[in-house]
Amino acid sequence: MPEFRQDPVAGYWVAISRERSDRPIDFARAVHVSKSSAGCPFCPGNEGATPPELLRYLKEDGSGWRLRVIPNKYPALTTEQGGQHEVIVDSFLHASSFGELPVCAGRDLLSAAADRFRELKRDARFRYVQLFKNNGPGSGASLEHPHSQLMALRVVPIQVGIELEGALRYYDRDRACVFCDLIERAARAGRMVWEDEQVAVLAPQAPRFAFETWIMPRRHVSHFAASGAELLDAAGAALHRTLKRMEELLHQPPYNFLLHTAPLHNAASASYHWHIEILPRMSGIGGFEFGTGCYINTVSPEESAARLRVNP
Amino acid sequence: MPEFRQDPVAGYWVAISRERSDRPIDFARAVHVSKSSAGCPFCPGNEGATPPELLRYLKEDGSGWRLRVIPNKYPALTTEQGGQHEVIVDSFLHASSFGELPVCAGRDLLSAAADRFRELKRDARFRYVQLFKNNGPGSGASLEHPHSQLMALRVVPIQVGIELEGALRYYDRDRACVFCDLIERAARAGRMVWEDEQVAVLAPQAPRFAFETWIMPRRHVSHFAASGAELLDAAGAALHRTLKRMEELLHQPPYNFLLHTAPLHNAASASYHWHIEILPRMSGIGGFEFGTGCYINTVSPEESAARLRVNP
Repeated sequence: MPEFRQDPVAGYWVAISRERSDRPIDFARAVHVSKSSAGCPFCPGNEGATPPELLRYLKEDGSGWRLRVIPNKYPALTTEQGGQHEVIVDSFLHASSFGELPVCAGRDLLSAAADRFRELKRDARFRYVQLFKNNGPGSGASLEHPHSQLMALRVVPIQVGIELEGALRYYDRDRACVFCDLIERAARAGRMVWEDEQVAVLAPQAPRFAFETWIMPRRHVSHFAASGAELLDAAGAALHRTLKRMEELLHQPPYNFLLHTAPLHNAASASYHWHIEILPRMSGIGGFEFGTGCYINTVSPEESAARLRVNP
Repeated sequence: MPEFRQDPVAGYWVAISRERSDRPIDFARAVHVSKSSAGCPFCPGNEGATPPELLRYLKEDGSGWRLRVIPNKYPALTTEQGGQHEVIVDSFLHASSFGELPVCAGRDLLSAAADRFRELKRDARFRYVQLFKNNGPGSGASLEHPHSQLMALRVVPIQVGIELEGALRYYDRDRACVFCDLIERAARAGRMVWEDEQVAVLAPQAPRFAFETWIMPRRHVSHFAASGAELLDAAGAALHRTLKRMEELLHQPPYNFLLHTAPLHNAASASYHWHIEILPRMSGIGGFEFGTGCYINTVSPEESAARLRVNP
């Protein structure tokens, strides 16, 4: 029986309808055309194909870089026009997805992002930095070599504003961080995928997409860039582990992830809590979602968490 | 040079960046697997494959139906769970897109939708009806035979709430309907695609997608179902004409359209104005859009309107 659930932070509604997964489908999925690394602008040896780098992490043996951050050669926004668009080349290895990289790629990615957040914060024009990844065809990605993106913005984006307000309303009413409470609720409801001392990986109560998964620090912290190295390491490892598991279980689905954090120049907040949202994109979104801001999902978060757990 | 524009109603930001259309792309587009009408559940002769119909329009010669409205066999929501999900089979003709149907399909579609709005309004539990269409692979559509969908909801959806509030704020400040003003602004800015006495077809000032196009009544009217037959006919013909032109110019792109109207039981409103938003889906949306609620578009609305005009 379909049911209608509301996200307690952003307020969107989700129809959970297993029955819809039985409907017939006339169309084929987008094709993954795997590329060789020969002409890849993100592979070692082709550094000249990209603008000069903003940050690099070297391999421990000094034999070259293992991660680079570069300006986006085809920026959606330039600094003059209100933004700064950067690409994180997650690894020197050319793979067809992030989960195929070694686990250190997850740690390096969040560490490099935090480095860039701290640097971009020094430019007082920027109010928010959006970290995100598009992986695979249908995800919005255009290149195969694993990479993530940073967009520094002079505005606090509308979706972040909605979350900040929702979290503040919850805090004013319940004197608690809604995200801290969501971790407790997920554990009670059988929606925890995996956890350690530092982070919780869970299926949210109103997932927009089948197998949507969130990663949160277990201890309250509002700003991503204020996280210590131990937390960043644990979150990076959890991110890699979760995506690798998702890629195996769902057969290389297209997906996005995005980081939500308190804005750069806001004071530390008791109501907001940084987190990563992973959105598998196996089903399309269409006129209903754009018209309403509601979503339709054929997999309940309880089922999704059970199937994502590596050792159920 | 990229620029950042804000939608004056809903408040989302759009980066217009022509440069990004030059970026290299590793992935192939989704494949359109055209189907014969043999096993199509929406074709005449297969009526038994769908639930009993809620509405039918007959051909003028009485030789069968030309449009049917049926309950969705795989509903995202059932009446018990807060909704009612219906399918409008736009035509008895099996075509691979809406634009291939004759123009009367546009008139029939909006007329049938208005009939269903009036009927669904009699159920006091429903507060909003969302009319939408997903056309082609990558649009969220699952079947090829041209069809539209209606979802009656017990809540006013979050996206409609955002528009109602934005329009009311504008009205309180300027004592004018923002949508009426947008028609004037589009005419002055060279963003009008086509217009007649009844309707305006225009590129909005902050389009989320390349070639996004809106259709609006020229005279202010808040509720879709309060429109007279003459307006519905003109809007239906404009909808068909615009989609046909878009399909030709852009080579059968996937697209959605959605209708936004004042909620069922609201009084007639001076600030809100029903309209149809057509969203071509040639580029994906990804982590940036989900994270921020902002969009990136590589075609300016001025260029899009110029190219969509049939006789420039």
